Amino acid sequence: MRREAEEDVRVGANKFPEKQPLGTSSQIKDYKEPPPAPLFEAGELQSWSFWRAGIAEFTATFLFLYITLLTVIGVQRSPNKCVTVGIQGIAWAFGGMIFALVYCTAGISGGHINPAVTFGLLLARKLSLTRALFYIIMQCLGAICGAGVVKGFQPSKYEKLGGGVNVVNHGYTKGDGLGAEIVGTFVLVYTVFSATDAKRNARDSHVPILAPLPIGFAVFLVHLATIPITGTGINPARSLGAAIIFNRGHAWDDQWIFWVGPFIGAALAALYHQIVIRAIPFRSRA
Amino acid sequence: MRREAEEDVRVGANKFPEKQPLGTSSQIKDYKEPPPAPLFEAGELQSWSFWRAGIAEFTATFLFLYITLLTVIGVQRSPNKCVTVGIQGIAWAFGGMIFALVYCTAGISGGHINPAVTFGLLLARKLSLTRALFYIIMQCLGAICGAGVVKGFQPSKYEKLGGGVNVVNHGYTKGDGLGAEIVGTFVLVYTVFSATDAKRNARDSHVPILAPLPIGFAVFLVHLATIPITGTGINPARSLGAAIIFNRGHAWDDQWIFWVGPFIGAALAALYHQIVIRAIPFRSRA
Amino acid sequence: MRREAEEDVRVGANKFPEKQPLGTSSQIKDYKEPPPAPLFEAGELQSWSFWRAGIAEFTATFLFLYITLLTVIGVQRSPNKCVTVGIQGIAWAFGGMIFALVYCTAGISGGHINPAVTFGLLLARKLSLTRALFYIIMQCLGAICGAGVVKGFQPSKYEKLGGGVNVVNHGYTKGDGLGAEIVGTFVLVYTVFSATDAKRNARDSHVPILAPLPIGFAVFLVHLATIPITGTGINPARSLGAAIIFNRGHAWDDQWIFWVGPFIGAALAALYHQIVIRAIPFRSRA
Amino acid sequence: MRREAEEDVRVGANKFPEKQPLGTSSQIKDYKEPPPAPLFEAGELQSWSFWRAGIAEFTATFLFLYITLLTVIGVQRSPNKCVTVGIQGIAWAFGGMIFALVYCTAGISGGHINPAVTFGLLLARKLSLTRALFYIIMQCLGAICGAGVVKGFQPSKYEKLGGGVNVVNHGYTKGDGLGAEIVGTFVLVYTVFSATDAKRNARDSHVPILAPLPIGFAVFLVHLATIPITGTGINPARSLGAAIIFNRGHAWDDQWIFWVGPFIGAALAALYHQIVIRAIPFRSRA
Repeated sequence: MRREAEEDVRVGANKFPEKQPLGTSSQIKDYKEPPPAPLFEAGELQSWSFWRAGIAEFTATFLFLYITLLTVIGVQRSPNKCVTVGIQGIAWAFGGMIFALVYCTAGISGGHINPAVTFGLLLARKLSLTRALFYIIMQCLGAICGAGVVKGFQPSKYEKLGGGVNVVNHGYTKGDGLGAEIVGTFVLVYTVFSATDAKRNARDSHVPILAPLPIGFAVFLVHLATIPITGTGINPARSLGAAIIFNRGHAWDDQWIFWVGPFIGAALAALYHQIVIRAIPFRSRA
Repeated sequence: MRREAEEDVRVGANKFPEKQPLGTSSQIKDYKEPPPAPLFEAGELQSWSFWRAGIAEFTATFLFLYITLLTVIGVQRSPNKCVTVGIQGIAWAFGGMIFALVYCTAGISGGHINPAVTFGLLLARKLSLTRALFYIIMQCLGAICGAGVVKGFQPSKYEKLGGGVNVVNHGYTKGDGLGAEIVGTFVLVYTVFSATDAKRNARDSHVPILAPLPIGFAVFLVHLATIPITGTGINPARSLGAAIIFNRGHAWDDQWIFWVGPFIGAALAALYHQIVIRAIPFRSRA
Repeated sequence: MRREAEEDVRVGANKFPEKQPLGTSSQIKDYKEPPPAPLFEAGELQSWSFWRAGIAEFTATFLFLYITLLTVIGVQRSPNKCVTVGIQGIAWAFGGMIFALVYCTAGISGGHINPAVTFGLLLARKLSLTRALFYIIMQCLGAICGAGVVKGFQPSKYEKLGGGVNVVNHGYTKGDGLGAEIVGTFVLVYTVFSATDAKRNARDSHVPILAPLPIGFAVFLVHLATIPITGTGINPARSLGAAIIFNRGHAWDDQWIFWVGPFIGAALAALYHQIVIRAIPFRSRA
Repeated sequence: MRREAEEDVRVGANKFPEKQPLGTSSQIKDYKEPPPAPLFEAGELQSWSFWRAGIAEFTATFLFLYITLLTVIGVQRSPNKCVTVGIQGIAWAFGGMIFALVYCTAGISGGHINPAVTFGLLLARKLSLTRALFYIIMQCLGAICGAGVVKGFQPSKYEKLGGGVNVVNHGYTKGDGLGAEIVGTFVLVYTVFSATDAKRNARDSHVPILAPLPIGFAVFLVHLATIPITGTGINPARSLGAAIIFNRGHAWDDQWIFWVGPFIGAALAALYHQIVIRAIPFRSRA
């Protein structure tokens, strides 16, 4: 892994930076790709920050499901959508919660709140396998609890209104649903990688603070586009939590789509970022 | 209270920071948990900044109730919600005002604009009891005046349209309303603590400037989710101001929920942040 | 005018800063209130930046009226508001344009785009009377041209649909309209003063870059609340431009409200900020 | 091209900076207008970053068309717009995607995602002609692929619902459509130039990071205003991609408007920024 110093590339301008002599701009900073995280690290399990990170992922996913499913049910229970926050309001609930929760938990756990994000970052070796599994378990538990509390408000209505579960809607094939989940998760995980890039961070210390905004927007935008197709998963914990609490047949029929799709999308985003954008495999390793 | 120096933990990446030798990254900065505020501080009452902070809280809460209740009445008075800004517009009014007002008053009073926020920060010993009581009184007075001005525009319509008061809506139990207020206020106060964390501030000076955005979004999101249940309180001054100006029987029936719920939610958020996230009780004190 | 050095006061925390010894925090910076701008400065007229600033105000107000009135007409021309961007979309158009235009022109002219803002800043002696008059004239000319282009698209429809003019709506008195304009402009100009405060700027260099966001949000929020009352003016150039191009009797009946209201609101905000928040009259002058 | 040092001009305040002696403020920094990019640069073609930038433009435009056209189709397929994200949701999809994608690709390709933006920056000599042509080709290819995937979900519905193509709507003349495209693209490219100004960048390093927000908002706002007129192009790749995949007669009738309009608007914005705002032709060249 060699050190690099490159010209900062700015919005709107990209004038063949590699040919310019290094060090001509005050914006140039050295950056070092952090070493890949080990798959297993025994010592990790003895640190409070490891367990605290899992608790933070649990709490964040709990609050995520609580707010978003409550918004979905609130829209569904009214026959006239004009007296609700509407479908657009549902999209804001999902995207806005990711924005706020990533902002709040980034410093504690990295702010994944989504097994697909954890999976993508694991492929890029940004965290250990131990940590990734622990996060995914805590995310799923948090999602189940969040959906359970929403059902607790009005158990009969919750079931009648579909419980906010993800299914492939009438008029679309399973393949459509899978495709929508793959591309949708690609948009999200591509944004996560772009916004948290170690190279960008080295160049500009504001990136980690501003990153939650495009990440939240990515979630909002994918919901705008794919709510008519699947209700939008792109987060297996969200799909699982709603399905377990709803627990009717058709909630389970398509559940595999909301795990396979997001994981494929996240893997493609990790590949795209590491190979095309960062070109990590082609670098000379010293 | 001992000094700490820790690795900065970034969005998306969390690789067992405690095991890394301290001081390896330029992002590491020392931070010192500020000492707990005294409960009473006589000298405080003689400073202009103390009284000015109270005036700023009054003005901010006045403007908050003015804009938000006017938006609520504007939506309610039209039988066809499609020719209004809609329920989503109401949620934007509450969240957007908190964003703008926290931005404007953070440097003067800390930008609470909400007795539950003041209560949570008092529990974490971020301000004195004297100051907390003074803030809460000024917030309630501001809220009453703001609601009064809105009623002044069209007194008869204001009463007919419900005056923007918080009540537990038909189809929900008192317990549902209390639970919605507790979790909703938890989301808000948890965001306030996360976004204004002294440790984050030490690491990155932009946090206090960017903090109003996730805080405002938290308010927006809780409104998206719980307007159908209670109209969304999560701010006792807002609920009290609307109830005093409306002053009909049913406005008072549930008023306790909009004080007890937010205060419990704020206390839980303070506990969660101080004990789980910051682990303050478990630190060695030197 | 004496120099001051004060503890930075952060979101959520305000612990009697004046008693703390100065210089204990790295966030403390000296700041100097800039001297009041002279009323007349002959040399100003010979600088290119003066004329360029006026051109920038013209262009910005032109684009502001163009986008916002086109949005208003687009919503009005459809009998079913559900197939338009809706009233909330109108509020976004006004607030969003102010955000984008203040961002773009802040470095050229200060980004007023509104005679009420110029008037408030003149009262606080932030710019010369010459410059203020020049800005207001250019803003009004830009607004007239912007409204004219919108009318040019469909002259007959423009007139039939009301031309986006500000009038006090049915069910409200002239006093209601005047009050709504006063408080609405207070919210806007109060946000402008808070977000561009020289003291905040000294403490944190990001404020001028982030300031357009709360300013744009303030405009959005006032529109959410007062579109039902007056269509929301809070910008005399916007009201004048629409009235001149529409030019029917009732467009002129209430025009005075959209000049007197905003100017009173701006004056109150300037007084509140300079006297209560900054306490400028009570400072010892050396 | 001479060096300049000028007083920083802040939001709301503009007090004749040229007359103040240089170097009196810590905000003053030297800035150097970067030299114009060469029209052709053979070496560029041999760098990986050149090809990577083109791939990034392809991917970004692909995702842009995918998300936005899917949103358009989702709104169109429902007879009752109240059960969709609505026309406002469409505007958010276009603006939000530009925000997120510019944020993600700014560091790789400059984040154009729009031939009109590339054309405007070419006129200002911010990139070479080789690079501009390569970008425009990749943007068009990405747009075609993105629209193709959307059609792939439901080919028959896609055609019946109009395929998201840009046409001049009933009730407007071709001249109206052309005018709307010219002014709309002016708003976008004017924002791009203002937000990425080398002079601003020199003064404040946050600008490149924050720039995507006003740029995305500009796209959102133009959509709010001109969806009723043309469906809003302001991006020839977006108009071409939808037309090629839809490929019916009337999709091609107005296609020239969505190339001529945006290119004229971008050229006017480049002229306005370079001549009026930067006054580059009038500077002494050393």
